[in-house]
Amino acid sequence: MRMLINVPETVVADALRGLAAAHPTLRVDVDKRLVVRRDAPGAGRVAVVSGGGSGHEPLHAGFVGPGMLSAACPGEVFTSPVPDQMLRAAAAVDGGRGVVFVVKNYTGDVLNFEMAAELAQEEGIRVERVLVNDDVAVTDSLYTAGRRGTGATLFVEKIAGAAAEEGAPLERVAALARQVNDCSRSFGVALDACTTPAKGSPTFDLPPGELELGVGIHGEPGRERRGMMTSREIADLAVDAVLSDLRPSGPVLALVNGMGATPLLELYGFNAEVHRVLAERGVLLAHTLVGNYVTSLDMAGCSVTLCQVDEELLRLWEAPVETAALRWGR
Amino acid sequence: MRMLINVPETVVADALRGLAAAHPTLRVDVDKRLVVRRDAPGAGRVAVVSGGGSGHEPLHAGFVGPGMLSAACPGEVFTSPVPDQMLRAAAAVDGGRGVVFVVKNYTGDVLNFEMAAELAQEEGIRVERVLVNDDVAVTDSLYTAGRRGTGATLFVEKIAGAAAEEGAPLERVAALARQVNDCSRSFGVALDACTTPAKGSPTFDLPPGELELGVGIHGEPGRERRGMMTSREIADLAVDAVLSDLRPSGPVLALVNGMGATPLLELYGFNAEVHRVLAERGVLLAHTLVGNYVTSLDMAGCSVTLCQVDEELLRLWEAPVETAALRWGR
Repeated sequence: MRMLINVPETVVADALRGLAAAHPTLRVDVDKRLVVRRDAPGAGRVAVVSGGGSGHEPLHAGFVGPGMLSAACPGEVFTSPVPDQMLRAAAAVDGGRGVVFVVKNYTGDVLNFEMAAELAQEEGIRVERVLVNDDVAVTDSLYTAGRRGTGATLFVEKIAGAAAEEGAPLERVAALARQVNDCSRSFGVALDACTTPAKGSPTFDLPPGELELGVGIHGEPGRERRGMMTSREIADLAVDAVLSDLRPSGPVLALVNGMGATPLLELYGFNAEVHRVLAERGVLLAHTLVGNYVTSLDMAGCSVTLCQVDEELLRLWEAPVETAALRWGR
Repeated sequence: MRMLINVPETVVADALRGLAAAHPTLRVDVDKRLVVRRDAPGAGRVAVVSGGGSGHEPLHAGFVGPGMLSAACPGEVFTSPVPDQMLRAAAAVDGGRGVVFVVKNYTGDVLNFEMAAELAQEEGIRVERVLVNDDVAVTDSLYTAGRRGTGATLFVEKIAGAAAEEGAPLERVAALARQVNDCSRSFGVALDACTTPAKGSPTFDLPPGELELGVGIHGEPGRERRGMMTSREIADLAVDAVLSDLRPSGPVLALVNGMGATPLLELYGFNAEVHRVLAERGVLLAHTLVGNYVTSLDMAGCSVTLCQVDEELLRLWEAPVETAALRWGR
């Protein structure tokens, strides 16, 4: 096992301590597994909360801050956080205008966020849940009924967070988040499997020279295995898989995402191919984000997420954001 | 070979095309291998130019923009750019107040930047060269006479760029850059070797369960090999190696850097250990940057760079920056 860790049992707590040390503008509760923006609760603002298993960093804790998430609750590696944790997150950030839970579509997350929403409502916190299920690769999988939630989570969290920052009401923030999810699709490819700290060996066996197409972000196998392909061929396949399900009539946002261990040199080269195929298909690009954002531990590979935007979504995407992993001004 | 590329010959050109596509605020000349900030030359500003072999992304092209580099000239993978390329970069960004070349200490870079500086001066461009040689691990190596230039490059480029942005004169920008280098030290550890596209196999053979200590950023072996260590032990060793050579009397900036394939979850956990050992040694931290910034293709591992700052260096570090890889406002 080639990992920069102490012991598997403390990986998440260690990372939270390191996050707190690097980002004093976050409130990090290592024991309770909460990452909260410092100025929460915002009295005039709807709160946006997300969470899920760890191992997808910078998602979600790296997206906590002005203009994006109010709080994140990280679970153990590839394991849903518990309802109590989500409830504490909601209580920490609710300023009276309600909380949107952004939930990636995995069975554990869905059930736990549902229970947390019920508990929160019993405590007088209004909650809207928004499901993210953008992955076109598989319908059901090891962890999911229906489509998995992957790269679109970043677009949902950014745009919902921007709307909340502007003072939009709960129903409006939730509606925008659902719109973003409805307009987004993803497809992922693994060049190598990931290794969870607890298991210590790759989650699936991928011989050199083979690719796993249609992978998710939990080390589960994809929908097809093929011999090695070029960046150009992978871009054709991934973009066409997305476009076969999303037929954008206007400009799109693109996330050209690394799975964790793929270096920027390769991702930028891949981005050139993604742009080429999008141009060939007549799709207009508004903005592209290239980097390791929605990851799967040390998996090598990439995913493409496209999100069709109208003027309002585009404006909210461009709005200022100030988080550990995503930041820009006006 | 598990790489997201087309063919080894086009890796750098492909990445530059992808960089241009993602960042329309950069001027990228793929054929001439130049990345220039859009508003160059800045009439009132000294220009800061760097470059070196590719494979260290986001260094240097990801640091081009307001408040940091004026231009970057990327060479082939792990290969110095040529003097003509550096000269073109200088000519593209010189607004009459001169150019600082930031040169990592590798034989090829040093010779080529020296020749480029002579050529530029013949064309009436004033040039100051600043050498970065912060790596305490080895004195001479495969590519270097003296210490290698690694993580401190980020601090030099940020602080020199901030001073240039404020209108500081050439000699002052160069002096600040030299001061940053003099006050910075680094130490790197590999958990796995990197694979260059041209070679297609790891640059050195590291059996599972072994670490290479004191590595550089070109896949060259380090100074010692050991059995697997915990994150805690690696932090002790790396920080103490840095502190044995830099005895800071004031606050430091820390770069907790991934080598390219190490996920953020591990890097943040490592950062917790770096902060612990710095606290134990009585070193004060001003700011910490955690991420894959000065990389070595798909190498797994990390490095620690510390830079002692006075009030002026700290102010320049905190000054706004707007690049692909590093950005913050006031």
